[in-house]
Amino acid sequence: MVLTYDGTQYHGWQWQKNALTIQAILEEKIQVLTREQVNVIASGRTDTGVHALHQVCHFLTHSDMEPESIRKGLNSLLPEDIFVRHAEQAPLDFHARYNVRTKTYEYRILNREQPDLFLRHYVWHVTRKLDMARMEACVSSLRGRHDFSSFKSVRSDNLNPVREMIRAELQGPSEEGLIIFLFEADGFLRHMVRNIVGTIVEVGSGRISPDQFLVILEAKDRKKAGVKAPPQGLFLTMVRY
Amino acid sequence: MVLTYDGTQYHGWQWQKNALTIQAILEEKIQVLTREQVNVIASGRTDTGVHALHQVCHFLTHSDMEPESIRKGLNSLLPEDIFVRHAEQAPLDFHARYNVRTKTYEYRILNREQPDLFLRHYVWHVTRKLDMARMEACVSSLRGRHDFSSFKSVRSDNLNPVREMIRAELQGPSEEGLIIFLFEADGFLRHMVRNIVGTIVEVGSGRISPDQFLVILEAKDRKKAGVKAPPQGLFLTMVRY
Repeated sequence: MVLTYDGTQYHGWQWQKNALTIQAILEEKIQVLTREQVNVIASGRTDTGVHALHQVCHFLTHSDMEPESIRKGLNSLLPEDIFVRHAEQAPLDFHARYNVRTKTYEYRILNREQPDLFLRHYVWHVTRKLDMARMEACVSSLRGRHDFSSFKSVRSDNLNPVREMIRAELQGPSEEGLIIFLFEADGFLRHMVRNIVGTIVEVGSGRISPDQFLVILEAKDRKKAGVKAPPQGLFLTMVRY
Repeated sequence: MVLTYDGTQYHGWQWQKNALTIQAILEEKIQVLTREQVNVIASGRTDTGVHALHQVCHFLTHSDMEPESIRKGLNSLLPEDIFVRHAEQAPLDFHARYNVRTKTYEYRILNREQPDLFLRHYVWHVTRKLDMARMEACVSSLRGRHDFSSFKSVRSDNLNPVREMIRAELQGPSEEGLIIFLFEADGFLRHMVRNIVGTIVEVGSGRISPDQFLVILEAKDRKKAGVKAPPQGLFLTMVRY
């Protein structure tokens, strides 16, 4: 299934005891439809407050309902901040996480003095004027194969910190002050996008230089990077298989 | 003061017993700042779930705080869905409601099959395909001086139902399917924009003809018009004095 969700009200994707998560709601509603207890597996977890325009997940069922009936049934049961865009029967050996070829994330910043309260759950509002050329230098240095240890979560359990960054782009600012970072890679370490964006914003605001950003990337040491950007600007926008 | 607010969480502008309203929150926070109990008067009330990009209000105070200090102080106290964009000292005879020359409302419709859950609080999602030419015929017939009784609320207490419609425009659809109605008038009857839009959408979807719309307008009878459009698509976007 392909899902869109607004992560504002959820404790992220992954099932948690005593917390509302997207996985838990989906599993509950699928059980209502199919009368089976299922385990829904996504391309990867998203954190509290992070959104998805295109998240992919799979589950096993003995139900003979048509995928489109499951899609419509789920949409009638799910809360209005989760939507199933597409459902199809996958080959039995398809796995939403293990088969991922690339994932794409966008990070949205509103860079201007006044907030836009209608975007408060969907952008990081940065009032300090950001220098696009300085940030572009950082973004372009990320393309290609790198050890991203400097940008992983301290709690990250990924054994291999090397990832191939296929696209790294900086767009904007729009007339309203919207700046978008776009990253496509064969995988992401936990909190990697938010740590990268948080550090690049420190370059954009003049706290550190583009050269220092390169030193941080090459240090392969989490303690060197800047602060983590907040979750609400982050969107999972595509998963390719 | 000029305010922006997201009306999703509020029971409209106007003070109500046991309900959260924008007026009540503003009066509470102004009292924290100035230590005076004040009565905040807006250009007009907005209903539950209706938004404002540019609402104007005034209040009387003996405080000698600078307007900009009041603005910043209020923004630090107000919840993140209400924002004071501007504050200035007005002449003592200024009145935010009585002195209004024109008000402008926009009504936003998302006209496509799939919902956009990120816009769920800010558009009316209409899945039936709407015919722009048929709706444009209705919109243009509204320009000028009319008795709008057919589009007033049944609970409306306006004695004079005649209003001058200075601008009436239909924009879109955008690539995403966004259609915007824009109305500027010397005043609006209660629920007038939502009743007009609800009826025009019935013309756009083919239920009634543009000619019937004219008959409804000229009937000056609330019972003739179509259903009221839901509140979340409505934005107060400008007030002129």
